Amino acid sequence: MDIFKLLRPKKVAVIGASEKSGFGGDTCRNIIKYQSNIDNVYFVNPKQESIMGKKCYKSISEIDDEIDLAVICTSQKTVVPLLKEAKTKGVGGAVVYASGYSEVGDEEGKEQERNLIEAAKELDIAVMGPNCGGYINFIDSTFSFAFVGDYANKKGKIGFISQSGQFCIDMLKNPEMKYSYAISAGNSRIVQMEDYMNFLLEDEDTKVIAMYLEGVKNPIKFEECLRKAAQIKKPIVILKAGRSPKGQETAASHTGSMAGSDKTYDAIFEKFGVIRVDDMQDLRSTSAILATLKTLPKNNKFGAMCVSGGETAVSADTGYMYGIEFPNFSHETLEKLSKLLPPYATPRNPLDMTSTLAYNTDRFADGITAVMSDENVDMCLIGFTISENVTVSNEIMFEGIKKASERMDKPIALMSFMETSRNKEFVERFINIGIPVLPTTKYGFSALKHLVEFVEYTSEDKDLELAIPDMTNKKETIALSEYASKKMLSDYGVNVDLGMIVTSKEQAICEANKIGYPLVMKIESADILHKSDVGGVKLNIRNEKEVKNAYEEIMSSVSEKAPKAKINGILMQKMLNKGTEMIVGLNNDPQFGPMILVGMGGVFVEVFKDVSLYPVPLNKKEAEHMIKSLKSFKLLNGYRGGDVADIDALTEMIVSISDFAYKNKDNIKELDINPLFVYPEGEGVGIADALIVLNQ
Amino acid sequence: MDIFKLLRPKKVAVIGASEKSGFGGDTCRNIIKYQSNIDNVYFVNPKQESIMGKKCYKSISEIDDEIDLAVICTSQKTVVPLLKEAKTKGVGGAVVYASGYSEVGDEEGKEQERNLIEAAKELDIAVMGPNCGGYINFIDSTFSFAFVGDYANKKGKIGFISQSGQFCIDMLKNPEMKYSYAISAGNSRIVQMEDYMNFLLEDEDTKVIAMYLEGVKNPIKFEECLRKAAQIKKPIVILKAGRSPKGQETAASHTGSMAGSDKTYDAIFEKFGVIRVDDMQDLRSTSAILATLKTLPKNNKFGAMCVSGGETAVSADTGYMYGIEFPNFSHETLEKLSKLLPPYATPRNPLDMTSTLAYNTDRFADGITAVMSDENVDMCLIGFTISENVTVSNEIMFEGIKKASERMDKPIALMSFMETSRNKEFVERFINIGIPVLPTTKYGFSALKHLVEFVEYTSEDKDLELAIPDMTNKKETIALSEYASKKMLSDYGVNVDLGMIVTSKEQAICEANKIGYPLVMKIESADILHKSDVGGVKLNIRNEKEVKNAYEEIMSSVSEKAPKAKINGILMQKMLNKGTEMIVGLNNDPQFGPMILVGMGGVFVEVFKDVSLYPVPLNKKEAEHMIKSLKSFKLLNGYRGGDVADIDALTEMIVSISDFAYKNKDNIKELDINPLFVYPEGEGVGIADALIVLNQ
Repeated sequence: MDIFKLLRPKKVAVIGASEKSGFGGDTCRNIIKYQSNIDNVYFVNPKQESIMGKKCYKSISEIDDEIDLAVICTSQKTVVPLLKEAKTKGVGGAVVYASGYSEVGDEEGKEQERNLIEAAKELDIAVMGPNCGGYINFIDSTFSFAFVGDYANKKGKIGFISQSGQFCIDMLKNPEMKYSYAISAGNSRIVQMEDYMNFLLEDEDTKVIAMYLEGVKNPIKFEECLRKAAQIKKPIVILKAGRSPKGQETAASHTGSMAGSDKTYDAIFEKFGVIRVDDMQDLRSTSAILATLKTLPKNNKFGAMCVSGGETAVSADTGYMYGIEFPNFSHETLEKLSKLLPPYATPRNPLDMTSTLAYNTDRFADGITAVMSDENVDMCLIGFTISENVTVSNEIMFEGIKKASERMDKPIALMSFMETSRNKEFVERFINIGIPVLPTTKYGFSALKHLVEFVEYTSEDKDLELAIPDMTNKKETIALSEYASKKMLSDYGVNVDLGMIVTSKEQAICEANKIGYPLVMKIESADILHKSDVGGVKLNIRNEKEVKNAYEEIMSSVSEKAPKAKINGILMQKMLNKGTEMIVGLNNDPQFGPMILVGMGGVFVEVFKDVSLYPVPLNKKEAEHMIKSLKSFKLLNGYRGGDVADIDALTEMIVSISDFAYKNKDNIKELDINPLFVYPEGEGVGIADALIVLNQ
Repeated sequence: MDIFKLLRPKKVAVIGASEKSGFGGDTCRNIIKYQSNIDNVYFVNPKQESIMGKKCYKSISEIDDEIDLAVICTSQKTVVPLLKEAKTKGVGGAVVYASGYSEVGDEEGKEQERNLIEAAKELDIAVMGPNCGGYINFIDSTFSFAFVGDYANKKGKIGFISQSGQFCIDMLKNPEMKYSYAISAGNSRIVQMEDYMNFLLEDEDTKVIAMYLEGVKNPIKFEECLRKAAQIKKPIVILKAGRSPKGQETAASHTGSMAGSDKTYDAIFEKFGVIRVDDMQDLRSTSAILATLKTLPKNNKFGAMCVSGGETAVSADTGYMYGIEFPNFSHETLEKLSKLLPPYATPRNPLDMTSTLAYNTDRFADGITAVMSDENVDMCLIGFTISENVTVSNEIMFEGIKKASERMDKPIALMSFMETSRNKEFVERFINIGIPVLPTTKYGFSALKHLVEFVEYTSEDKDLELAIPDMTNKKETIALSEYASKKMLSDYGVNVDLGMIVTSKEQAICEANKIGYPLVMKIESADILHKSDVGGVKLNIRNEKEVKNAYEEIMSSVSEKAPKAKINGILMQKMLNKGTEMIVGLNNDPQFGPMILVGMGGVFVEVFKDVSLYPVPLNKKEAEHMIKSLKSFKLLNGYRGGDVADIDALTEMIVSISDFAYKNKDNIKELDINPLFVYPEGEGVGIADALIVLNQ
């Protein structure tokens, strides 16, 4: 399958070309209006001689040329025969607009889609769609696109892939967005979302990949793309549907996407440095800032300047909400600014530059330069709402900013305070000198936060891998007993005290003397998951007599309360000292494999939902990051003069559990270690209880 | 002082009228262009015969008419003499644009401001400013406003007051905002922000009050306004600067406002149902939705409809982030929708209505009606991004929405997905039929969240009062000892065990036998705030011998570690049973009086910052709301099958502490009750330790 024939075709045939509105007509209109070399396009329609003044062929077979791409504008049942005919002309790519496939949700539609997939495979044709809007390749000027709109002056560096046609239309409307490719991928069953991602990752004209994603179809390819992006540090900005239960339902029915747990996506995106945005506008402004800036900031410190006190105060407040840092200016900067500003102004960051600076190009440029030269400032923000009518003072500001921007290599962005009709030419001029125009502050600061996250991300200290499972033919789940769970962990190198299973009082007393006191005794049975509920646990046993009593009491209580359970015996173990109680869990995502969860036991997890989730495999640095991102980390780190916990041992434990999960990715379903005791520095950790559930 | 002469003048004189740009010229330009009856305006300039074709007077004295308002466009030093002259013509209001007053920050500026305030007082003139931009009264068509702009077709129901001129300019630019009044209040030292608020509260043409506020100058008037607003349920939407430390600094230096603790404002706004917004755009969209809707939703349930699956999924997700609820549609609604939609569509809320509905007015109207008729739906949201060019399908949508809106009394709003240049006339048409056009989803859902909060707010269960303190002449703070603190609480009706102070071993033993065991002994001294640190606390004392030992040990340790402390003796008390540990604190805000803080002791307050803050006085319902808004409330409410705590006793305790604070508002500085033990239901609460700091 050659995706280049689809996305970078030399010759194109539009099958079902037309003058009427609809797929065929709208595609032709776009081509005639925007495509730079229309000689490379052939229109095909058996009923027309010419369309929009251009010759029309009866069929693709009639064309005396080698064709790369067939744009099929006709209805569903014509598609497969047309693909077969097109193949004879060398076609290797096709856009299929027609709907009536799996998105309908009935058996007929699914059948049709299977047929299409099979035909495409057999013919070796890279098919976009079905049920799609096609694409625009702004680099080569190829318009295989069924939505009419204004596409002049849109060439740029953002590659956009969308599973929603409407979002493609929306994103193309904005003057601040400049594209290399815009792809309305539809059902994306043949060429998949991950194939487009890979294409754009390798495409040199694309600087930023922006996506609207409802679900991943091919986790292995998806993982490859994320790894590649992290390694070459090309930003991927994703609006992923499914943050809410209702959003998940909708995405699932819209493109038949598998939703998966939303928190899993957050965890994966964190590992690979993917930027996840909240809505369309956030997607737009975040991609635009990454694509437009001449240079990215070195770090996360901003210097801001506004023309009024109110805007300055609100910038400080809104920036604060989004975690944007405005460091104090250096003494030198303050001195420079004092000379430029009137005596009543108080220079600080963010800066109320007063109208003095806004009315003189050179003075303004000097002000910006003073801020940008500050060693604490990585990037400069200028609060300036572009309105529809450009006034003289706006011109002064533009020239001042341009001048300052040319002097230094640090990035500058404009920040808006009100949504308004912005003067397009003026916006264009800023973009052309590498200065993005951010939307109003919630979105503006959100985009800056994403920018900072991207800048701060490094792939070097991460295992750029997922443990993608193969769960074919796994149909049942089976829970292991505590001993079996611990044994399995131990077999894979996790440090855990296995204890001994005893089956008589005498054996219990004999083993107790070997283990030493105090010890714990627990019923050992794969059928009993909640041992305490059936009186199956005795703690703090201190002598032979207590061993004997415990044995009797457990056995009698269990035989009464769980008469049908198969009992392996009683598990005897040295009683662990009580340390800080943690929980470590594993859950195997059917698409992306085991995810590790870490949290502090009890109310911290249950009431405050204070947990970290991260994909397997992970290394020590990643494990450490998980722990440190807990709010309750403070409690491990010498809270109120208490002991510092053995964080090193805890991270090692998490890594060894990750290794265990990695090796068992195809058969583990869940692991629950609760509690894991963490002791003071140097004293390690101890697993008190463990439960494994397997897929079989 | 007659604010009506300022804001609703019959006759106006513009002093310093001019044709040049600047305060005088720009004010004249606005008047000539927009004011409906310019015969009521007199231009005054000693050097001009006429201005913009209108007669010009040499001085205000020369005008043979009674004048209400003088708009003074001239420089600072002319202001007071002009006010004096104007008074002779009956002037009762004045707009003073001139700067050079307290905002400069120097002694000269402050002096000038004092002079101006005094003159205004003496002459009984309501002065707007100084350092202001003036105002527009859209109701009577009065333009005493120094910023030029497009003010046609702006009359509406929002009264806007701003301490930033720039924000006034920004807010007036937007086509979606319609105003009764727009006031750039400047330093607002004579007529204060609270006076404008009160005016707009009483103004029948104003439906919503929107404000940019840097600080409150007159807490008593402010409180009166908030109470009035809560009682008549007129919404006040405030953008309050100072959420961040940097924002506080800026606001303080911009208009010399007293910042106060930002959390205090949140607490006050909660009590009085004031809507606090995050930034300018949030201010705009929240005021616009409240002003535009024909009717407010009865409750907090939304039905949403979009034209694409992607928009539907993202609406569900973003709504979820802002706590917006999309209830499931009733069976009846689903049936109605199924009949209107194509077979492949799956009706649910939010609804992907597919393009089927969007292309037929009647069908679309029926779809909206179906959603609005659902008994679970209080308000309908239609996802629809208005772009610059209005197409035929947009017309169909408008007509469909209009038709549906006329059929039912439930509110409808449009939701946008992308910031874009919206067609102004089209926006106007929607606003004219009571349908607000919300900005992109973060702002759109934020505005809806504010709307829901406003709808759900009720003043009936609240004490609509603050305990505004008078701290004149209070210069020192003094800490009370534990006994004195408890005694003071007890004197004001707070239920607390005072214990006994003993000064000898013998007395200790004697008292111990009266009190009963176990008991606690603590050093009693106003000089020792941290009693444990000096070995001043002994817990769980069980017999005479232990009393004797404790007495000796405490005395010897304290005399060693705090040799200079004045010791009152040793406080003896029955030892409280350990219940759930809570913290109750008071802090007296210099402007707004005592604020109560409640939280669960230890890590919950310190690590998770899980606290409620609320103004004094409060009633039982408010106290209960404080407790229930804690995340850790779960732990009081029978967590994991444990005891339900005595929440009733806890709320009563909070109310009694509020009463204490209310009565001591002028002299209390802080109170710290830590811990307060809360026992199981019916067993009450117990104060273990208390510390009061007074202002003297």
